[in-house]
Amino acid sequence: MTTKVTPRSEDYSRWYTDVVRMADLADYAPVKGCMVIKPHGYALWENVQAGLDRRFKATGHVNAYFPLFIPLSFIHKEAEHVEGFSPELAIVTVGGGKQLEEPLVVRPTSETVIGHMYAKWIQSYRDLPVLINQWANVVRWEMRTRLFLRTAEFLWQEGHTAHATEAEAMEETMQMLDVYAHFAENYLAMPVIKGEKTADERFPGAVATYSIEGLMQDCKALQSGTSHFLGQNFARAQQIKFQNEEGKEVYAWTTSWGVSTRLIGGLVMTHSDDDGLVLPPRLAPQHIVLSPVLRDDSRAAVLQYCDRVAEELRAQNYDGQPIRVSIDRRDLRGGEKVWQHIKKGVPLRAEIGPRDMDSDSCFVGRRDQSPREKQAIPRSQFVATAAATLTEIQNNLFQRARRFRDDHSVHIDTLDDFQSYFTPQNSEKPEIHGGLAWCHWAENPQTAALLQKLKVTIRCVPLDGEAEPGRCVVSGEPTERRFVLAKAY
Amino acid sequence: MTTKVTPRSEDYSRWYTDVVRMADLADYAPVKGCMVIKPHGYALWENVQAGLDRRFKATGHVNAYFPLFIPLSFIHKEAEHVEGFSPELAIVTVGGGKQLEEPLVVRPTSETVIGHMYAKWIQSYRDLPVLINQWANVVRWEMRTRLFLRTAEFLWQEGHTAHATEAEAMEETMQMLDVYAHFAENYLAMPVIKGEKTADERFPGAVATYSIEGLMQDCKALQSGTSHFLGQNFARAQQIKFQNEEGKEVYAWTTSWGVSTRLIGGLVMTHSDDDGLVLPPRLAPQHIVLSPVLRDDSRAAVLQYCDRVAEELRAQNYDGQPIRVSIDRRDLRGGEKVWQHIKKGVPLRAEIGPRDMDSDSCFVGRRDQSPREKQAIPRSQFVATAAATLTEIQNNLFQRARRFRDDHSVHIDTLDDFQSYFTPQNSEKPEIHGGLAWCHWAENPQTAALLQKLKVTIRCVPLDGEAEPGRCVVSGEPTERRFVLAKAY
Repeated sequence: MTTKVTPRSEDYSRWYTDVVRMADLADYAPVKGCMVIKPHGYALWENVQAGLDRRFKATGHVNAYFPLFIPLSFIHKEAEHVEGFSPELAIVTVGGGKQLEEPLVVRPTSETVIGHMYAKWIQSYRDLPVLINQWANVVRWEMRTRLFLRTAEFLWQEGHTAHATEAEAMEETMQMLDVYAHFAENYLAMPVIKGEKTADERFPGAVATYSIEGLMQDCKALQSGTSHFLGQNFARAQQIKFQNEEGKEVYAWTTSWGVSTRLIGGLVMTHSDDDGLVLPPRLAPQHIVLSPVLRDDSRAAVLQYCDRVAEELRAQNYDGQPIRVSIDRRDLRGGEKVWQHIKKGVPLRAEIGPRDMDSDSCFVGRRDQSPREKQAIPRSQFVATAAATLTEIQNNLFQRARRFRDDHSVHIDTLDDFQSYFTPQNSEKPEIHGGLAWCHWAENPQTAALLQKLKVTIRCVPLDGEAEPGRCVVSGEPTERRFVLAKAY
Repeated sequence: MTTKVTPRSEDYSRWYTDVVRMADLADYAPVKGCMVIKPHGYALWENVQAGLDRRFKATGHVNAYFPLFIPLSFIHKEAEHVEGFSPELAIVTVGGGKQLEEPLVVRPTSETVIGHMYAKWIQSYRDLPVLINQWANVVRWEMRTRLFLRTAEFLWQEGHTAHATEAEAMEETMQMLDVYAHFAENYLAMPVIKGEKTADERFPGAVATYSIEGLMQDCKALQSGTSHFLGQNFARAQQIKFQNEEGKEVYAWTTSWGVSTRLIGGLVMTHSDDDGLVLPPRLAPQHIVLSPVLRDDSRAAVLQYCDRVAEELRAQNYDGQPIRVSIDRRDLRGGEKVWQHIKKGVPLRAEIGPRDMDSDSCFVGRRDQSPREKQAIPRSQFVATAAATLTEIQNNLFQRARRFRDDHSVHIDTLDDFQSYFTPQNSEKPEIHGGLAWCHWAENPQTAALLQKLKVTIRCVPLDGEAEPGRCVVSGEPTERRFVLAKAY
């Protein structure tokens, strides 16, 4: 039998790495901190790209490409920006065999270089809004790799927009946060909380940062996408000015927003189980894998039967496109084949041997159910219901994740409850602690010290829901609404 | 009126830059040698990506992503490779505020780092073939920028495959060359010659390099895609070994192949004219742009009419997809609008004013014809024939480019003819010289010196056509077939 995934209860961190490695999503690169995204992992990223890119374009954005290298002096133009990013920079000092006069930063994010171009391109209110996105690699120096979650180089998209008015820029900021939340919930099947970051957690240089926050199975939150309202900070630092309709020269209002390959890590941790990766069908590179049971006397007939089933399935639409089906023709023991597909997260799998063929049926397993719950289904029924089953799996995964999130969300109103919620009860299992705490909270040195002690962070000030006046669980200061606090990645 | 493009006859190099800039394809980046690909240019690259990616996948390849940074020592593993790339490297020496122990190279190409991973992944003949492509940015230090044609950072795809046998690897090499040639001719409408590079022009470390060569309007050749048969050179340097079916450990056979954003430069130079960019419809981000003539009294009615025409056009398929139509609703003088679309290379454009609307017709111009040749066409006819017209434009552009190529290709059999073909006849117009010379040629110091003097290069040993024994035009040595020689980018 193939190697087993470490159970979550035994070692969550090893479980995660096992799931990623055994699903063949990624590998460690020879350079510390970097990763290789293997074909199965990259196919997930391609599906993320396709889904988001469609939404970006539908909301009026276009793609472009800005350079990898940024003059070091650019980073220094926005004071908070340089402070935030300096410790993470990779710097090119030699080019073409010569020491460079000005070192070049490998982009950690592109506000500064894109702002420089916008300052050239934008002259009049007629040039606005500028709505550009780029798909690119970025580098933030990091030596402790966690595949997808924390790597020195990662892939992402970064939207950068410039607007004539504050209101438009704010509308854009919120629109993109909504695009991310919708994609996370409806495609990744990952329930998220939309909220505003507190000052300490803001993007360096932003006026306001909004994020979507997911909850992973180890009860840690994962920030999964951010949308920044930059006000006129970067416009001022980079002189992005334009003549408004009244002929007056004014600064533009800018935004930026991004998600990265970290989303893949969130996807893995939201749904996977002790058997390996679980993929929501909308993101799965293959919706269905057929595993023919190959014996010498029936090989040709079984393969032909599988071809026919595959063809019939491909004639069905799921999510607006033909169902993605592959046939695993390899000469491996049936059990081994099937376990590989389970570990890779294939939503629906069917084993087809000579006896199944004779009874014109398929032996079907669903990845959202236990590997043991397989059942023989007549071929015609399997084909006719495949798309509906995929829809059901997608919904199930979302519901299950939301149930988990809800089961690990509590309203906390006393300091004692807060402390015990985040204090591991079993010193041998320090990873077991509370999830999302919805608390009244005031930001001050006392509460900051407590957070540091407990290794808890303020995730966000949630946007949805009503204001609810109360008092800070630590200091008793009056507050207007609950914050969401949690341990986090 | 808007700024004019410098005519080709006046200054070809300025013409090229004007076309690129006025079509809004690209801009210079603040870092020397780098470029910004603007939305219209990036949309072309997206169409190149989509077209090629579909073909890569149809031939069994999958995408993945390998790291940007390569340890300097990796580059040194293959002797010819390091010699070829060392002068062009950008090197990171500082990361996270510290001097790095081993400097990191920003990838100029990824054979070495991908080979390192393949050595880990490939153990048995069952693991082969490995057929992986990556879409990525690469850096080759370069201070003299020519937008798209020569930039320090560029975007490309690089395929890297490993095979069990020499024959399979060679078959892959040729298959991908064919994919490139087919794409260049049928999508970019750029006629190309497929051939093998001579030893001096080979990829550093390859056993054989094949390329597709186009001819630009200044009679210089442009290498537009390469496919390398790497033999076992990289496998040996990186220990890519596997157990073959007989249980013996042997080296794999590898290939690599790539095209880059340079293709966009080739596309621009193949078709554009003194009015600006000309785009083959299959690559054009917009197939048709409608320019309503907006007057206060008829604005709403004309816009509504345009919406209807656009909708009808979008219901038509071209190249397997709905026709891409946009409406330019800006309040600009009609002439200015139309000239912008001409400069941007829009294949079909239609002006629609109140009188056109009253006669239920559109005033249509084709980018493969003179801007003056516009004609009124009844709306229903315009809509019904739009797809066919686009096909015709695509074919026309290819035929025109092929005619140009053929008109500037000669068989040369004497040294005198060869010298005069490549010697500018007018010292004030050094850019006017011959195109492709098909000659018998022997490689030796004497011929090499002549090439250097004339600034001519051997483009390739063409693959198509019959062998034709003859004698080198310079040395008289017997040779087996004609080579193609030209000045080149």
